[in-house]
Amino acid sequence: MEKERIGFIGLGIMGKRMAANLLAAGYPLVVRSSRDETRQFFASRKAAVVQTPEDVARLCDIIITMLPDSPEVKEVVFGTKGIFGAVRSGQVYIDMSSIDPASAKEAAEKLAEKGVSMLDAPVSGGQEKAENGTLSIMVGGDREVFERCLPIFSAMGRQITYIGGSGAGQIAKLANQVIVAVNIAVVAEAMCLGKKAGVDPRRIFEAISGGLAGSQCMTDKAPRMFNGDYTPGGKLVFHVKDFKNVLKAGSEFDASLPLTSLVMEMMEELLKDGFSDIDHGGIAKWYEKKNHVSLISE
Amino acid sequence: MEKERIGFIGLGIMGKRMAANLLAAGYPLVVRSSRDETRQFFASRKAAVVQTPEDVARLCDIIITMLPDSPEVKEVVFGTKGIFGAVRSGQVYIDMSSIDPASAKEAAEKLAEKGVSMLDAPVSGGQEKAENGTLSIMVGGDREVFERCLPIFSAMGRQITYIGGSGAGQIAKLANQVIVAVNIAVVAEAMCLGKKAGVDPRRIFEAISGGLAGSQCMTDKAPRMFNGDYTPGGKLVFHVKDFKNVLKAGSEFDASLPLTSLVMEMMEELLKDGFSDIDHGGIAKWYEKKNHVSLISE
Repeated sequence: MEKERIGFIGLGIMGKRMAANLLAAGYPLVVRSSRDETRQFFASRKAAVVQTPEDVARLCDIIITMLPDSPEVKEVVFGTKGIFGAVRSGQVYIDMSSIDPASAKEAAEKLAEKGVSMLDAPVSGGQEKAENGTLSIMVGGDREVFERCLPIFSAMGRQITYIGGSGAGQIAKLANQVIVAVNIAVVAEAMCLGKKAGVDPRRIFEAISGGLAGSQCMTDKAPRMFNGDYTPGGKLVFHVKDFKNVLKAGSEFDASLPLTSLVMEMMEELLKDGFSDIDHGGIAKWYEKKNHVSLISE
Repeated sequence: MEKERIGFIGLGIMGKRMAANLLAAGYPLVVRSSRDETRQFFASRKAAVVQTPEDVARLCDIIITMLPDSPEVKEVVFGTKGIFGAVRSGQVYIDMSSIDPASAKEAAEKLAEKGVSMLDAPVSGGQEKAENGTLSIMVGGDREVFERCLPIFSAMGRQITYIGGSGAGQIAKLANQVIVAVNIAVVAEAMCLGKKAGVDPRRIFEAISGGLAGSQCMTDKAPRMFNGDYTPGGKLVFHVKDFKNVLKAGSEFDASLPLTSLVMEMMEELLKDGFSDIDHGGIAKWYEKKNHVSLISE
């Protein structure tokens, strides 16, 4: 069976690597980018390079976007020379951006009027997993459409989970982000308690990370805290963006989010202090400031 | 080398199993208990059974306690017919209870005046790990005394970590408890968001538990939430007891504990609602009540 032609819009740090994996898997690819360098990168790999999202939609069976947030997605889909101007029945639109679930649902409904199926398929995992094709992908939309697109997802990710109807992928991603930020924050809270009490946080880490307190966040982020290394990884400013979407969804669905709200305040304080571009593990800096201590230890 | 005679006081669910492991490892054991059944259990296994903590101290080189909280430890050590009345230079007192670090330090100082070394050595892991001798043990006190006692700890636990000076073991235990309760709470917060948004929390669990959001608490407690199974495990009322000690230490050391304070409020509401004896995973019940949803799913 011939492989479906895929259009990819949003070739940033993540998107570029994901699109490259689609090329490597043998998918004919159409891209659009405002950056010369990106256009050359894909042109030299035999992808078709076009001018507008509308052009992408005209040429492809499947259209994928990987964009910063809801407004960018809306612009690319429904804006001037957007995808919406050229879509036709039978096409599939996959949004792999992390956006708010309500916007995902709304776009899916509008596209359905033209016979286009939309999947929301946000990812977790950073640049390295994008490069290695080992992202986690959480998918919302029709199950049959999901199954049709599974080979495409498999070219970009490893843990690929069908969550439920339209918007459900975004909800799973938000749940993920809530847990990650709070798990990071509580590691910092516990380690700062130790530090203030005169105990070496590294010893605490050693004692407890293998037990019930253990978490991937502790394993990944506590050593960064002890080294003061907040090279991103997942940038704090993006986590704040996701948390805005969490709080929007929380308000829409009337969900109680006290831990989320508290950690959001910490992150917003950090942004005000100029820490937008550090790793989200840098939530520890909020605790260091409040406690007048440093978690850096030998 | 002949094995040192160990006295064990506090033969509850945990202590009984820990003492039995010391017997199994060949340590001569002296116990004191107010319960007939417990006295018979140990007498039939060739342990000496005596009447008072003072008697235990008179007969043993090493005295271990495993008691509910600081007041019980103070009573057994410094109360009428307490250990303190009979201790002599060269003995070691190991308190394996989870108590507040200040009380541990204070007891250590008083005992030092009589030439007795004290270790604070709280454990993590429940009944099953106590039974299998696979507890995690976090130890504060003199390093040399810790090393002398390592074979004793090895009979009861697997992950045995020297944390630092007197009280440091208790600090590590409190750090552990902070992380555990908050990690449980945020799993419930994220899953309830999913539920309110119409998404099956089990799918979210499946999608995210292998990634950065993954934690031992999620692995152990989320399935309990989905089954409504809060058989303890670690009882909520004991976690509240530990959190009182966290907040006491936080106030003593001027540490900022916003997540701890928030989850303490949730747990105290649950105690008021009559949930003292459920597993600490039952923090999910706070979210279920606030959100008017159930996390139980097929």
